[in-house]
Amino acid sequence: MDLNADLGEGFGIWRLGEDDALLGVLTSANVACGFHAGDPSTMRRVCLAAAERGVAIGAQVGYRDLAGFGRRRIEYAHDELRDDLLYQIGALDAFARLAGTRVRYVKPHGALYNTAVADEVQAAAVVAAVVGYDRSLPVLGLPGSALLRLAAEAGLRAVREGFVDRGYRPDGTLVPRSEPGALLGHEEAVGQAVRLATDGVVESLCVHGDTPGAVALARAVRAALTDAGVPLEPFQPAG
Amino acid sequence: MDLNADLGEGFGIWRLGEDDALLGVLTSANVACGFHAGDPSTMRRVCLAAAERGVAIGAQVGYRDLAGFGRRRIEYAHDELRDDLLYQIGALDAFARLAGTRVRYVKPHGALYNTAVADEVQAAAVVAAVVGYDRSLPVLGLPGSALLRLAAEAGLRAVREGFVDRGYRPDGTLVPRSEPGALLGHEEAVGQAVRLATDGVVESLCVHGDTPGAVALARAVRAALTDAGVPLEPFQPAG
Amino acid sequence: MDLNADLGEGFGIWRLGEDDALLGVLTSANVACGFHAGDPSTMRRVCLAAAERGVAIGAQVGYRDLAGFGRRRIEYAHDELRDDLLYQIGALDAFARLAGTRVRYVKPHGALYNTAVADEVQAAAVVAAVVGYDRSLPVLGLPGSALLRLAAEAGLRAVREGFVDRGYRPDGTLVPRSEPGALLGHEEAVGQAVRLATDGVVESLCVHGDTPGAVALARAVRAALTDAGVPLEPFQPAG
Amino acid sequence: MDLNADLGEGFGIWRLGEDDALLGVLTSANVACGFHAGDPSTMRRVCLAAAERGVAIGAQVGYRDLAGFGRRRIEYAHDELRDDLLYQIGALDAFARLAGTRVRYVKPHGALYNTAVADEVQAAAVVAAVVGYDRSLPVLGLPGSALLRLAAEAGLRAVREGFVDRGYRPDGTLVPRSEPGALLGHEEAVGQAVRLATDGVVESLCVHGDTPGAVALARAVRAALTDAGVPLEPFQPAG
Repeated sequence: MDLNADLGEGFGIWRLGEDDALLGVLTSANVACGFHAGDPSTMRRVCLAAAERGVAIGAQVGYRDLAGFGRRRIEYAHDELRDDLLYQIGALDAFARLAGTRVRYVKPHGALYNTAVADEVQAAAVVAAVVGYDRSLPVLGLPGSALLRLAAEAGLRAVREGFVDRGYRPDGTLVPRSEPGALLGHEEAVGQAVRLATDGVVESLCVHGDTPGAVALARAVRAALTDAGVPLEPFQPAG
Repeated sequence: MDLNADLGEGFGIWRLGEDDALLGVLTSANVACGFHAGDPSTMRRVCLAAAERGVAIGAQVGYRDLAGFGRRRIEYAHDELRDDLLYQIGALDAFARLAGTRVRYVKPHGALYNTAVADEVQAAAVVAAVVGYDRSLPVLGLPGSALLRLAAEAGLRAVREGFVDRGYRPDGTLVPRSEPGALLGHEEAVGQAVRLATDGVVESLCVHGDTPGAVALARAVRAALTDAGVPLEPFQPAG
Repeated sequence: MDLNADLGEGFGIWRLGEDDALLGVLTSANVACGFHAGDPSTMRRVCLAAAERGVAIGAQVGYRDLAGFGRRRIEYAHDELRDDLLYQIGALDAFARLAGTRVRYVKPHGALYNTAVADEVQAAAVVAAVVGYDRSLPVLGLPGSALLRLAAEAGLRAVREGFVDRGYRPDGTLVPRSEPGALLGHEEAVGQAVRLATDGVVESLCVHGDTPGAVALARAVRAALTDAGVPLEPFQPAG
Repeated sequence: MDLNADLGEGFGIWRLGEDDALLGVLTSANVACGFHAGDPSTMRRVCLAAAERGVAIGAQVGYRDLAGFGRRRIEYAHDELRDDLLYQIGALDAFARLAGTRVRYVKPHGALYNTAVADEVQAAAVVAAVVGYDRSLPVLGLPGSALLRLAAEAGLRAVREGFVDRGYRPDGTLVPRSEPGALLGHEEAVGQAVRLATDGVVESLCVHGDTPGAVALARAVRAALTDAGVPLEPFQPAG
């Protein structure tokens, strides 16, 4: 089982999250690539630190929207989105290579992640960016999403991801943030993590790095998974 | 002899220069990388067109300053500049690879180009970015500049560049744009191009793509060089 | 009857449209405010030129999206959009005051204009920005739009606008750009302008400034309206 | 004596400083205007809170450089800088008016503040922006700076400002941050604040809001000034 979180989400003087502490717990780091968050020096620092600790580097690609942190849906045309994402992957890979490794996977951020669940145009643009850059890179997404379906159809590895601290409905969709039960408490989250990891539905677990207690939650999840006999390691490359 | 010009210098809806016509004349295209000009879809388009015509793709890296088109000196710290440039090279290389080729050289743009003539901090940052990305990439700069000296000291190939349409002083520096003789007419420029190409001082000739008559000038330079027996080809990789 | 067009839509080194020629024909100039296009020096120049010619200055407010020219819908929250627009109006008014006049009206740009036809959240945000800045400022929009309805309900002057060069359906909506008949030829456009101006449906006519022939079309519309006895003047302030 | 600090220096999701706590201690708030920091919704919130507490709102204008937080000198041309600053003042004033007040003064931020000490082109651009917007607005700057001299020559009120927590040399210049004694401890800073306030050299005291202990220091300074019989109030408008 893989354990991922968003890292490198500051910009310039501004910081967000606890990158260093999380790097000691995660197996994979979704590194922001400069369009919704992240600046080149932060990307360099996070890539070097991740490589040093054996944490896999993923491209956390997003809309071009620093002011909105990539959380506002934007009606991109397919080609513009594809090219914006390809640009981000290439930029991050420069720092990953500098750190002696490579970008290992791609995960859309924020509103792009949510849009790619059902919007085929944007899901296809994510897939096209990955195909254009490196067909061996897996794509992380919600189980049942258009993104994972189109990724698989394009011959990419489609990695089903679960959220440790978000409530699920019986049909497998997330409880919207505006409704009760959207966010789980610490104990509930740890329990859900073990369930998700052991029932085979997901291959990677995400902890939200910008919420209070994220580091403690990640540590507790890691410990609980170990207790449950679930080995933690970055999801494996396609071939 | 190499013949280069700046391409892909639009942004979003805005266009600049005559990319397509220039691609039929140049041997090398300095492609803007998104910080002072250039957007991902333009980068993709220019890279595909350049590769199709056998024109070498160079990373035209610049300051993060769309509003100033990279023409205003910015007092970057060394590491921030290095990382901003490394980011740009990696992003452009994604599109060059997509086009079946690679970034073949690096050339600083605008105020960064001028600053790197004498400012050792910024010159060193350009060198560090190239060293960090790929030591086989040549760096273009003014003969006698700090940039070329530091590039050579770092083991990079330092390519001496001349400007077809700018006046030179006897000491080899450019006449400032604010003084008479800064810009040459068409005939003078062609004559200077042949002299620069035959006296061995420079290895690459630059035509400014955003001036009126740029395409006609580039064609005339190419014809005059051919008449003078100077072969036109992209400067060769280091090894 | 008012005759308006978008002006000041360059950014930095990049230019768009024929501002100077249009200023000799229009009664109102929709000046871009820096978020989707327009930079402060352009805003100053256009405001000074408009004031000199007696052309009314309107705030052409848009999404924060230079790369997309404000043509991509963005799912803003109400308050964020309201504040982004209020900021733009205030910034433009600084230049209008410098030119001895004031911002005289507000017109949303691009995707915001289209979104505000039916989306009540974004329409309300436009209205809230105007209410917050100056209740005497009219708002331009499509007849029948949510924007004009909410503006009127808030006590603002809601100005019905027609497009000279876009085809209309029988129900008063525009033919989508993807369908035949979306764009009218020169003669058709002039004829439609006279009809729209004389049948009382609209109070302001818009010519798209970034299309080829825009200046000639604007001149022909102005002449035809004059021939038809329709006086051309900026729509009058509310009180 | 006036007591000011920088506020509203977040951007989008990112926060900086303790705006709310500082607003209970200051007499004047230098509000970032969106170019080096600050976004419209933050500007609105800070203006409303400042107005409610009777804290004067100043325009903390800076370079267009979010990535560098306005701390990197940029070689602006005079007119471009003037227009960028005028834009910012107008934008902030929209929110100040919404809060029932007005922008009361202008203070350059970061590298612009430092550059305007000796660079006459940039100092003149700041002055031109204020003259263009509202000649009644005072300008804050370092005693002896080109900025204050040119402001006075232009008929503006030039307000001499002192820094509570920065070391001074005998000649009145600041100890550079790279040298020992650049930053004072809490006790030293309070003592210096009282000296600066009572010897008549400065009219406004600045506390750096983004340093640890800023709120405690501001409170201690305020208490010490009160004990020393120095009344705290916003510096008074010119006329």
